[in-house]
Amino acid sequence: LNRIPVAVLGATGAVGQRFVALLAEHPWFRLARLVGDDSAGRSYADVVRWMGDGAVPASAQAMRIEALEAPGLPEVVFSALPAGVAGPIESRLAGAGHKVFTNARDHRMDADVPLVIPEVNPDHLGLLEGRKGGWIVANGNCTAIVLALALAPLQRAFGLDEVHVTTMQALSGAGYPGVPAVDITDNVLPFIRGEEEKVESEPQKTLGRLAGDRVEPAGIPIHATCTRANVREGHFESVHVKLARKASMDEVKAAWREFRGPPEVQGLPTAPKQPIHLHEAEDRPQPRRDRWLEGGMAVSVGRVRLGADGRSLRFVCLGSNTVRGAAGASVLNAELCKVRGLL
Amino acid sequence: LNRIPVAVLGATGAVGQRFVALLAEHPWFRLARLVGDDSAGRSYADVVRWMGDGAVPASAQAMRIEALEAPGLPEVVFSALPAGVAGPIESRLAGAGHKVFTNARDHRMDADVPLVIPEVNPDHLGLLEGRKGGWIVANGNCTAIVLALALAPLQRAFGLDEVHVTTMQALSGAGYPGVPAVDITDNVLPFIRGEEEKVESEPQKTLGRLAGDRVEPAGIPIHATCTRANVREGHFESVHVKLARKASMDEVKAAWREFRGPPEVQGLPTAPKQPIHLHEAEDRPQPRRDRWLEGGMAVSVGRVRLGADGRSLRFVCLGSNTVRGAAGASVLNAELCKVRGLL
Amino acid sequence: LNRIPVAVLGATGAVGQRFVALLAEHPWFRLARLVGDDSAGRSYADVVRWMGDGAVPASAQAMRIEALEAPGLPEVVFSALPAGVAGPIESRLAGAGHKVFTNARDHRMDADVPLVIPEVNPDHLGLLEGRKGGWIVANGNCTAIVLALALAPLQRAFGLDEVHVTTMQALSGAGYPGVPAVDITDNVLPFIRGEEEKVESEPQKTLGRLAGDRVEPAGIPIHATCTRANVREGHFESVHVKLARKASMDEVKAAWREFRGPPEVQGLPTAPKQPIHLHEAEDRPQPRRDRWLEGGMAVSVGRVRLGADGRSLRFVCLGSNTVRGAAGASVLNAELCKVRGLL
Amino acid sequence: LNRIPVAVLGATGAVGQRFVALLAEHPWFRLARLVGDDSAGRSYADVVRWMGDGAVPASAQAMRIEALEAPGLPEVVFSALPAGVAGPIESRLAGAGHKVFTNARDHRMDADVPLVIPEVNPDHLGLLEGRKGGWIVANGNCTAIVLALALAPLQRAFGLDEVHVTTMQALSGAGYPGVPAVDITDNVLPFIRGEEEKVESEPQKTLGRLAGDRVEPAGIPIHATCTRANVREGHFESVHVKLARKASMDEVKAAWREFRGPPEVQGLPTAPKQPIHLHEAEDRPQPRRDRWLEGGMAVSVGRVRLGADGRSLRFVCLGSNTVRGAAGASVLNAELCKVRGLL
Repeated sequence: LNRIPVAVLGATGAVGQRFVALLAEHPWFRLARLVGDDSAGRSYADVVRWMGDGAVPASAQAMRIEALEAPGLPEVVFSALPAGVAGPIESRLAGAGHKVFTNARDHRMDADVPLVIPEVNPDHLGLLEGRKGGWIVANGNCTAIVLALALAPLQRAFGLDEVHVTTMQALSGAGYPGVPAVDITDNVLPFIRGEEEKVESEPQKTLGRLAGDRVEPAGIPIHATCTRANVREGHFESVHVKLARKASMDEVKAAWREFRGPPEVQGLPTAPKQPIHLHEAEDRPQPRRDRWLEGGMAVSVGRVRLGADGRSLRFVCLGSNTVRGAAGASVLNAELCKVRGLL
Repeated sequence: LNRIPVAVLGATGAVGQRFVALLAEHPWFRLARLVGDDSAGRSYADVVRWMGDGAVPASAQAMRIEALEAPGLPEVVFSALPAGVAGPIESRLAGAGHKVFTNARDHRMDADVPLVIPEVNPDHLGLLEGRKGGWIVANGNCTAIVLALALAPLQRAFGLDEVHVTTMQALSGAGYPGVPAVDITDNVLPFIRGEEEKVESEPQKTLGRLAGDRVEPAGIPIHATCTRANVREGHFESVHVKLARKASMDEVKAAWREFRGPPEVQGLPTAPKQPIHLHEAEDRPQPRRDRWLEGGMAVSVGRVRLGADGRSLRFVCLGSNTVRGAAGASVLNAELCKVRGLL
Repeated sequence: LNRIPVAVLGATGAVGQRFVALLAEHPWFRLARLVGDDSAGRSYADVVRWMGDGAVPASAQAMRIEALEAPGLPEVVFSALPAGVAGPIESRLAGAGHKVFTNARDHRMDADVPLVIPEVNPDHLGLLEGRKGGWIVANGNCTAIVLALALAPLQRAFGLDEVHVTTMQALSGAGYPGVPAVDITDNVLPFIRGEEEKVESEPQKTLGRLAGDRVEPAGIPIHATCTRANVREGHFESVHVKLARKASMDEVKAAWREFRGPPEVQGLPTAPKQPIHLHEAEDRPQPRRDRWLEGGMAVSVGRVRLGADGRSLRFVCLGSNTVRGAAGASVLNAELCKVRGLL
Repeated sequence: LNRIPVAVLGATGAVGQRFVALLAEHPWFRLARLVGDDSAGRSYADVVRWMGDGAVPASAQAMRIEALEAPGLPEVVFSALPAGVAGPIESRLAGAGHKVFTNARDHRMDADVPLVIPEVNPDHLGLLEGRKGGWIVANGNCTAIVLALALAPLQRAFGLDEVHVTTMQALSGAGYPGVPAVDITDNVLPFIRGEEEKVESEPQKTLGRLAGDRVEPAGIPIHATCTRANVREGHFESVHVKLARKASMDEVKAAWREFRGPPEVQGLPTAPKQPIHLHEAEDRPQPRRDRWLEGGMAVSVGRVRLGADGRSLRFVCLGSNTVRGAAGASVLNAELCKVRGLL
């Protein structure tokens, strides 16, 4: 009941809105400040162009938007700032003692910034050990998080020699206004700037091993082709992996089904009961039908096909890009920091 | 001016309509008969639910639909019959001396049926050599044709060790009524029954080598994941290949740019001037913008990325599924047979 | 806790699924039987092609589908049978003592069948007074219900001289498989068979006056043009009315805002708190954003423009076609019958 | 063969591109200059984000974009400038002796600017009579042109007492980038700023009567509700009119079918053979299937329903918003001025 006051930076944008939705009624955090320089002084409901279905959460509607410089910024800050803008601001805030949970890509690959998926690499928070004052914890790129969650059980159980992934990414991943309707109607767009680089590099860190004060990259060759599909929400990915060791279909499925975060993560308010939902129906998962499983925090896997060699494995995976792949990811990180005593 | 009379079987279906559109004003063939059992006796314009933009071709509007058994079926027959139904009918017609050009899958893998893409394997018509009476020439599955055209120049120049492909296939590929709008709006469907098998097997024959009276399969491991996208026309494919020999980016691009069918094919009425259009713009090809290049007979390739090893090659390709991948493919086959003296 | 057992006829169809969703956890009714002749004996989860997001309600998954003739059909029956099929079956069931709540159009205009919207004409249940044995209560056409709800407050307060309506109707209104995606993508379909007749006639009964054992039609000239839009759910209607008496903008808005059903209706489990939501934002209501207000049971009104004459009134309205306009409508009717002691 | 050199202002925008497409191979006009301040000095192909299918017209690709102030601006200018910007520039150009054909709304209602649809009110060019130096001729709003063309034959034959129209307008009407895909997917947007005012006022002028040096407004009460639909091109309108005189269905249909511009207009290169296409199929016209009739210059009318009173008439109409409703409209105006000796 003594909830921790938190701020959201960039609260009116696409991801900022998801932060507001997730934090408006959070049991541990209290949405204490909405930051947006352009619209400081106005009420959130007046300024925001709400993208979700339904209305702006009641508790946020009347909140005033404040400038970043306004006094009284809470210690705990969620950043939905755009890449490029986010980097220097987040560094400054961390320097001033703030705990920053960021969705921006700017600091994700910094050596001293944990890039965390609580079910996958909660130990990477060890990078913060012994640190005084503020710090930054990043969540990954929306596509990379979904992929890393689907790969983690395979990596643990069988090792991974190579990964090919083709994505069909949702419109909401491009923010607002994002993709013009005249471009995507009756179409697929074969290119998303900067995306393939992130999908190929970030899982190296998330799936890597903490070794003292650094993370050893996983060193898995990942090859990505990223496209935009005419879907509002839910990144869909077609994946082919070469397992390092032979596996049976039963072993592969069990690896996904039995995958759980450590007990401290399983109990977090935003954690899905089951991080990976394995679909047996041949025509699932589908973005529209499965993106909101467990409030958008579960990743779906389906269409599993294992080659006769026991190593060539194909499947599709799917996850909410704005929740599991963005705001929900940072909220879960913050919850983990809370139970770890870092907040 | 003495055009060869031809029939279209299944003339009212999605592919049948494309046959009608392509043959209505053909310089060498004369649309002499439209066959459809259900609606025999009625005019084509009355029966057909025309899917294309604009109107039914004027020359076909008033044609009566005839039953298959009606006397006077032309020797040359284009078959747009559905799989399963097509097989026995086509066999019977060939047995009765007809030359059948079919889009159906039933006979594609038969040892004595050439599965031909004129720019790729025109020599496979050699399977018909010395044959008396009728025969069947098949075009491939719509997705497989686009893929085989994109692969052929690579196979010739560098050899192919392995192929991974993820497709985003158009709605028109499912025929009519095909995919319900409530299923595909704001969605991707991750499964198309029987499609992956065809994509993995048919190019083995098309890209195979004619050895006497049989075709030696190409033996390239192809791994396919086929999905349905919310696009009306144009199959889009994301491909990763492992080249057998190292290549430079310039060599790879030259292989596609310079790819042409043999001279006898280049002059065919329906043949594209350039079978492969290589796009340099980073956001092309796109289904809506590029599917109708060269009347829908050209395949687009773009987003070419070559790994540092000179062998790992990624690209996307795109082609009209109803023209290049279906009716146009069989019309081009028939034109090739004509110049070869087989008709 | 002693919930009334009910059956759903046509439980696997588009509207049948909505009945199942609404009744699976209903406080007063217990989903006791799912009827579907084709698939009798199989489990609901095996047979149904679930159209909603997420999964089949847990309590319905394992239920066996029964044939209509199987013994033990509950007294209370919800019918989601298709028009034409529904009529004779529903008559037979009523004759055998069942209380039938139907979404089918077959009996809607029958003199002895109440066509009820609980907030609008609950008194029409008076048609059942003194009846022994079974009877039929119908809900209206999905488009007509939304329109009648938007018109009712205007009719009461000012009278209605004339109504023009152009609809943009959702795909789910066509059932499953419904509209082919190749027809509606990048398109509007200007015709829905039989729809305009229903929109023009049914509100005459719903808005009519109960006079003894018959309903006097409202006698409002209604002119409808019904089209299909590329929207999954939510019928949107552009309406122009000529009020019988002059009104001010404030009076018009107050009529909508203050509109409520009688107290007995307001307390029903499925009743919306506010039947009409008046939107002041110039770009609302929108189908995607507003169709699920109050669980899909509220109708939205917006873009209100009143002519200088105080009588020419334009507005748009919107409502969920499968809930407010179909299954939810009949469930609400049944709840009303329950509190009236008719069940 | 001595083609008149012309300039296009705002050549890279959505409507500017249509001007370029229509003028690139025009028999009477020669595309001599492309004006765009931001990108002056660069080639058109480098700068333009081509929205059409296929490629930029070959003759325009290498043209340099010039600043407005660059010397040598041709006398004849087509303006695709945005509203607000267009007004003062067009006034200045006319003052300097240029003949300006504009698609912008700024001067449409000016008393000395003819607002012309050649088939409807070519005589309004009389406003230019005796004028020395430059002038402006405007085409109407895209929605208003389609409506005015559909109404003109009715007005002439029967008179019009009142018009109600609800539009479903295409995405391309919002320019580029225009409507965000996340807003319109699975949705209808019920508001287009400023649109209803134009639809209600402009036809008063187009359908008005030239009386000396002024146009007497038609004085028809028009009531519009304008919405945005998920359609790329083609404004669709549902119309109800009250005819001033009783008519039979045959008379109404004949009025549309027989409607033609004066002979001088019928021979213009861009003029459709038949300005109004009357569709008898109950499910036509449809935007996707019918928007490009006669190169996008014909308007479609269908779903005609006449009330028992012989005066209440309902129908739908459809036309290309970027061609008939914008660039094609001004090109046709310029062609008319040419044959009138005004150029």
